[in-house]
Amino acid sequence: MAPSLPPLEVTGRLDRLRTVVADHADAIVVSDLTSIRWCTGFTGSNAILVVANDDSTLITDGRYRTQAPDELAAARSNTLVEIAVQPIEAAVDALAAVDRLALEADVVSWADQRSWTTVVDADLVPTEGLIRELRAVKDDAELARIERAAAIVDEALAGLTGLLMVGTTEREMAHALDREMRAAGATGPAYDTIVAGGPNAALPHVRPTDRPFEDGDLVVIDVGSVVEGYRSDMTRTFIIGASGDETHRIREVVTEAQAAGVAAVRPGVVAQEIDAVCRTIIADAGYGEAFSHGTGHGVGLDIHELPAIHARSTAILQPGHVLTVEPGIYVPAVGGCRVEDLLVVTETGARSLTNSPKPTC
Amino acid sequence: MAPSLPPLEVTGRLDRLRTVVADHADAIVVSDLTSIRWCTGFTGSNAILVVANDDSTLITDGRYRTQAPDELAAARSNTLVEIAVQPIEAAVDALAAVDRLALEADVVSWADQRSWTTVVDADLVPTEGLIRELRAVKDDAELARIERAAAIVDEALAGLTGLLMVGTTEREMAHALDREMRAAGATGPAYDTIVAGGPNAALPHVRPTDRPFEDGDLVVIDVGSVVEGYRSDMTRTFIIGASGDETHRIREVVTEAQAAGVAAVRPGVVAQEIDAVCRTIIADAGYGEAFSHGTGHGVGLDIHELPAIHARSTAILQPGHVLTVEPGIYVPAVGGCRVEDLLVVTETGARSLTNSPKPTC
Repeated sequence: MAPSLPPLEVTGRLDRLRTVVADHADAIVVSDLTSIRWCTGFTGSNAILVVANDDSTLITDGRYRTQAPDELAAARSNTLVEIAVQPIEAAVDALAAVDRLALEADVVSWADQRSWTTVVDADLVPTEGLIRELRAVKDDAELARIERAAAIVDEALAGLTGLLMVGTTEREMAHALDREMRAAGATGPAYDTIVAGGPNAALPHVRPTDRPFEDGDLVVIDVGSVVEGYRSDMTRTFIIGASGDETHRIREVVTEAQAAGVAAVRPGVVAQEIDAVCRTIIADAGYGEAFSHGTGHGVGLDIHELPAIHARSTAILQPGHVLTVEPGIYVPAVGGCRVEDLLVVTETGARSLTNSPKPTC
Repeated sequence: MAPSLPPLEVTGRLDRLRTVVADHADAIVVSDLTSIRWCTGFTGSNAILVVANDDSTLITDGRYRTQAPDELAAARSNTLVEIAVQPIEAAVDALAAVDRLALEADVVSWADQRSWTTVVDADLVPTEGLIRELRAVKDDAELARIERAAAIVDEALAGLTGLLMVGTTEREMAHALDREMRAAGATGPAYDTIVAGGPNAALPHVRPTDRPFEDGDLVVIDVGSVVEGYRSDMTRTFIIGASGDETHRIREVVTEAQAAGVAAVRPGVVAQEIDAVCRTIIADAGYGEAFSHGTGHGVGLDIHELPAIHARSTAILQPGHVLTVEPGIYVPAVGGCRVEDLLVVTETGARSLTNSPKPTC
C-alpha cells in the first residue's frame, strides 16, 4: 500500500485568480472543466464557475446535486453551489453588479460568447491563459500526485521489459502497461498509451497496432498514468534484438539531445532555449527536418498544460512548473525514436520525476 | 477472431456538408477533431479542415506528415493535406475567393473566431450543429462498429457476473470490465466505466471507489467500448444478495419506464416524447424528482452525439440514428438505479444493439 498523499485543497486559488482578473475585468466566468476542478475540487462533466469579487458560484445540473457540495467541502472550497438547467441564464443574478466580465476566450465557444452578450449588460472582455498560467505552478499536494503517477509508470515499465522481444505486438505491450499501471494504483492511463515499433515508430502519435516487434526495430513507448486527476508523461525507445547502424545512431543523437535539454532546465530560463538546445544537437547530426514537433509541454490535470516548450515559446520557467523534455527523430519507413522525462523545476534547477533507465544498447 | 468489418469510407460526406453549408455560406472551416475524422478519416490531435465549393484541405502539423495522407487514402477521401505551423494563417489561401465563411460556433473558441476576423476578409457566419446533424445518421460501416462495440460489452459483462457479490469493490469490477473489453477486441472503454454501489449509486456519474459491495446494494454498471473510434453505451443495475423493498421497487419502476421508452422509439417520433414516456411512469410512481437527467443521447464517434433525448428536444428520430434510452432514479443515501440500452432507429421501428439481460431479482 502506497503512503497516503497530502490532501488536495484549493484554498487561496480563487484569490490569486481575482488578482490577475482585476487587471482586465470585475469578474470572470470559468467554463473549462479542468480549470473548474482546479479552482473548486468539482470533477463533474458540466458546470460553469462565476468568480466575482466577493463570492463565487458553481452552477451545475441535477446529476451533481450531492456530489458537487461534497467535492467542494473536501477541497475546502467556499464556493457556493447552484443547480440549474440553463447555466448561463442562471449566472445572471451573480453578475448583476458587474460592468466588465472576463471570459476565457481560448475556451469559451463563439456560440456561448454570443449567448452571454444577450443575457448580461456587462462588457465582455476576452482573456487567455489567466488560469492556465496559475495552474502551471504546482503546489506540494499536486506534485505528490504527479510524482506518484510518474513512479507508477516507472514500475509498470520495469516489470514488463520481458515483453520487449520479437513477436510481442504493440497492442499487447500497450494493454500490459495499462493493466500494470492500474494494478499499481493509477486511475488509468493519462492518454492513449503509445507503443510503436519499426516503421510505425516513424509516426509520432500513432495508435498501437497488432504488428509484432521484429529484430532490429526501434520501439517507442510513450506512457503516462493518472493519480487523483493528475497525470504523468514519459517516453523510452528500445531496440529489439540487434540494432542496425542507423537505428543505433538515431537513438544516440536523441538521447544526447534530451540529456542536454534536461540539463538546461532551471528557473529563469526561457522555454525556447530548452527547445534550441535539443534542436541544435539533432540538426548538427543531420536530422533537423526529422524532429517534427516541439520539445515539450507542461503536465498536470491536463496532459498538455503550460509552459509550452517550443521554438516560439517565451514562457519563463518557474519553480513548481512541471514539464516534459522529449525530442525525437522520425525517419519514414526506417523508424523513430523519442526520449522523454517529466521534470519539476525547483528553486535551483530541476528534479526528474521519471526514473526509468534510458537504454543504450 | 471476429469477422472483418466493412471498410469505413467518407465518400459523399463532404458533398452532403456542402449542401447544408450552402444555405449559410460559401465555405466552412471545421475545427472539431471528431468531425474532421468523420469528414476525412484523419485521427490526429491537431488539424483544421477547410471545405470550399471545389476542394477541401486538411491543415495539420509535421507530426502527421505521413499519417494524414495515409489515413485519408484509407478512407477514400479526396481532401488535400497541407502541413503548417499556424493553421489559421495557412488557410488564408484556400479561402481567397470566399465571401461568407461559416465557423462552427459551438466548437470554435471565441479567441479563434477573433483570429479569423483578422486574417480573412470574408464575413464570418456562426453555424451550429450542421455536421453533428449529418453525423447523427450512421451508415452501415459505422453501425457495424457500434454494434461490435455493444456486443463486446455484453460479452464482457456476461463473463463477470461472478464478481457481483458481497466484497467485490467498485474499482475491481470496473477494471475487470475494462480488461475484458480489451481482450474481446475493443480499443478501450468508451468513457470512464462507472461501477457504483450502495449510496454511491445515488450519484449518477461518480467514479468507481474502493468501497466493497454490501448485501442489499443496488450496483449501477454503466459501460461502453470503442471499436475503430466508434463507441457503445449501456447500463444495468444489479442487486447484491437480498433486495430491500425500496431498492426492488426502484428497479422495477426504472425497468418498466425504460422498456416503455424503448418501445416508443421509431422514425418520425419527436425525441421529447421518448423522454415524456419514461418520465411519466417514474413520476406516477412518486419518483419524479429523483430522475435528475435527460433520457438519452446519440452515440457514435463521440459518446454524446445528436439526437438529444430530453424534455426540450425537438429532434425527429430518423433511420440510422443511434441513441440511448436510460432513465434512472437516484435517492440520496439509499442508492440509485439506471437501465440503458443502445438502439438504432430502423425504417419501421428500432433494433437494440444492447443484448444483456435485464436483472429482475
